[in-house]
Amino acid sequence: MNRELMLPDRVIIDLEHRAVRPFTRKKEVRLSEMKDYFLDTDEVVRILSRGEDPLVYEYYEYSPSGSKGDLNLGLTTIYPGKVGREFYMTKGHYHEKDAAELYYCLRGRGVLLMQTTDGKVSSVHLELGSVGYVPVGWGHRTINTGNEEFVFFFAYPSDAGHDYAIVKERGFAKVVVYENGRVELVDNPKYKRA
Amino acid sequence: MNRELMLPDRVIIDLEHRAVRPFTRKKEVRLSEMKDYFLDTDEVVRILSRGEDPLVYEYYEYSPSGSKGDLNLGLTTIYPGKVGREFYMTKGHYHEKDAAELYYCLRGRGVLLMQTTDGKVSSVHLELGSVGYVPVGWGHRTINTGNEEFVFFFAYPSDAGHDYAIVKERGFAKVVVYENGRVELVDNPKYKRA
Repeated sequence: MNRELMLPDRVIIDLEHRAVRPFTRKKEVRLSEMKDYFLDTDEVVRILSRGEDPLVYEYYEYSPSGSKGDLNLGLTTIYPGKVGREFYMTKGHYHEKDAAELYYCLRGRGVLLMQTTDGKVSSVHLELGSVGYVPVGWGHRTINTGNEEFVFFFAYPSDAGHDYAIVKERGFAKVVVYENGRVELVDNPKYKRA
Repeated sequence: MNRELMLPDRVIIDLEHRAVRPFTRKKEVRLSEMKDYFLDTDEVVRILSRGEDPLVYEYYEYSPSGSKGDLNLGLTTIYPGKVGREFYMTKGHYHEKDAAELYYCLRGRGVLLMQTTDGKVSSVHLELGSVGYVPVGWGHRTINTGNEEFVFFFAYPSDAGHDYAIVKERGFAKVVVYENGRVELVDNPKYKRA
């Protein structure tokens, strides 16, 4: 921060180390924190009982001071891996306010899964150079469908707010799995409709 | 656009061709359109009188349907070059509403020059991987200080609005020039204070 001018410093997106400097928030999400999010919870329990607690994803976020009209930005890395046949993914969330979000893929490949609370579903494949756009009002989750790290730059209005509870309680309508030798989007049998 | 869901398609940032697909706006800005923006207007006239009208910069923008909370995104390319000792640059503008903007440098190098109408000035050097953040209320212009194309991804709130007139009338307080064998930020003798 340039304190005299109250201006943020230049922010560095360090793709090699999948880090952002400076950052205001860093979060690592391990499997133990996501037990209820995956379809095959028995498999999660088996993995954890072996003393393993793999890193599923992590993100660095830079959030400016918080004026109206500000943007948060950062970098998310989803590690390659599966729980049973289901690919590693983020928890996913809705925004509390009217706020879109963009994901600009910098490495690897994955899926941006989106849905509305009234039953609409959409998915977008992301790879190097593609931007997934989450329209206002759509819940969203990202999934690593490749064999390497899936890394993307994100930006969204700073006042968006995050509702994680609705996803934790109901899940997403679709899950992304490896089936019949390919990546497939299938109905989530555990999904609880509103 | 996925018309059934009213969702935008995936947007491709084609760095090789410095293009965005799909885009809702593309603009090429040639020297003739920027005559009043450069310090050495005589030199601009000389270049144009030789029948040349070089491309100074161009951008592709993708703007979604226009909900509150939406984000515009795109790619700007500033070509390498100078008018006299002053580097090629964008016109620059202020946002009409409270709206920040981010510039994520993907190729080349340059400067993000910022100022407020009450006399504050700041500048940030950008190169591959760096993000320049324009805080709410700051006028901003980007300048190519390198020998290759300066290319960056941008994002800002869709409802920001653009005020180009204030820059056209008053200019920026500083100019970025090549002097004494290096890139320097110097006072703009033509700058009209508010």
